[in-house]
Amino acid sequence: MRIEAKLAERGLILPRALDVGGAMRLPFAQVRVFGDRAFIAGHGPTNPDGSVAEPLGKVGRDVTLEQAYHAAELTTLAMLADLQRALGDLDRVTAWLRVFGMVQTAAGFQQTPAVINGCSDLLLDLFGPEVGPHARSAVGMAELPFNIPVEIEAEVAISAS
Amino acid sequence: MRIEAKLAERGLILPRALDVGGAMRLPFAQVRVFGDRAFIAGHGPTNPDGSVAEPLGKVGRDVTLEQAYHAAELTTLAMLADLQRALGDLDRVTAWLRVFGMVQTAAGFQQTPAVINGCSDLLLDLFGPEVGPHARSAVGMAELPFNIPVEIEAEVAISAS
Amino acid sequence: MRIEAKLAERGLILPRALDVGGAMRLPFAQVRVFGDRAFIAGHGPTNPDGSVAEPLGKVGRDVTLEQAYHAAELTTLAMLADLQRALGDLDRVTAWLRVFGMVQTAAGFQQTPAVINGCSDLLLDLFGPEVGPHARSAVGMAELPFNIPVEIEAEVAISAS
Repeated sequence: MRIEAKLAERGLILPRALDVGGAMRLPFAQVRVFGDRAFIAGHGPTNPDGSVAEPLGKVGRDVTLEQAYHAAELTTLAMLADLQRALGDLDRVTAWLRVFGMVQTAAGFQQTPAVINGCSDLLLDLFGPEVGPHARSAVGMAELPFNIPVEIEAEVAISAS
Repeated sequence: MRIEAKLAERGLILPRALDVGGAMRLPFAQVRVFGDRAFIAGHGPTNPDGSVAEPLGKVGRDVTLEQAYHAAELTTLAMLADLQRALGDLDRVTAWLRVFGMVQTAAGFQQTPAVINGCSDLLLDLFGPEVGPHARSAVGMAELPFNIPVEIEAEVAISAS
Repeated sequence: MRIEAKLAERGLILPRALDVGGAMRLPFAQVRVFGDRAFIAGHGPTNPDGSVAEPLGKVGRDVTLEQAYHAAELTTLAMLADLQRALGDLDRVTAWLRVFGMVQTAAGFQQTPAVINGCSDLLLDLFGPEVGPHARSAVGMAELPFNIPVEIEAEVAISAS
């Protein structure tokens, strides 16, 4: 459980499952495991108890670049938490393949790569230079659910359990 | 042909191939089959004859949430129709993996998950709890082609023919 | 090296790696190769020297449809260049699977498929009717990094080296 140990060393907490308090039905899998792949649904920033983490709003107006970078880190932890629940052990991830980073942008905010670096930096730190690298897009969306500033979906390769 | 039987039981019709009346060249595959995967291009809501289904416009302004949910159902039927044409039999789908739901939003409309539930609910109803679950994002786009309110792309696992 | 020969016949130049002049850290893989797949990160239009190609801005306001079609061609050449650097030989591509085309749209610009045709037409011309076809979406984004008018990500199947 090397990845879990690294998280503990860094004082990082994997949050509980997303809890939107009955505000919305979400009839899909947060992580879909099939064969040697896991598909990670679009995640947003959450608090350790699974509630949606503030600040909310448009990046570049309601949310600063620094806050959005942190939101991308929290989003990554939420992805890892659901991945751990699905796989049992994060060391089963053999390669990050694709990261699709979506930023809820105010008009004219185009530093979307600097926001999603909060995800990429954490993945590379935790998973290292063999497993961690991923193809990525980081783009500006008109609206995101729950007014979250960042949403990320991903695909990873996994080993047999 | 269990899925086709379920569609008939529910009175659901798989539409003909998309027909935009020469308004636009679309030089790509609606479904790309390769090995044990089928990649489904972005689809929109269509009528049984393959024409683009109304209402058109931005959800939250021109199109209500209820209309958009129905548009997501029609979009799913269009995806299934092209998948059937590509595979011959929808029972060859062994797992829905990824659904990427795009909603053409009016400013401030963020109930995008409730719209794309029109797709997820139908997939789970038709394909059941083993094959139907999928990782999903449901996000707000600035613009969609043909002014459609909903567009969905997806990836599925398939068995040999 | 059939694809490289076709590029030369058409006078098309694969650009150098993206160079944003230190304007932004980009800590991810432009192409992530794993097993029989290559995942291509979101790319934009570049000049032969790897700098971001003009014109920049919103399609339908700052950039015409014709200019955006050409930007999609340049974007495709940038993808092919990174794919060649990752694979050694573009003939290792056995199938284009998924193309996700993103257009930075001015309000009301919905001819996004006509823009991304600049990518699809080139792929089909170079790779032919067996390898070239791909599932595709072509949608309007609120903002793209570096103010580029077009960004495209993709997934391809590859043969062993």
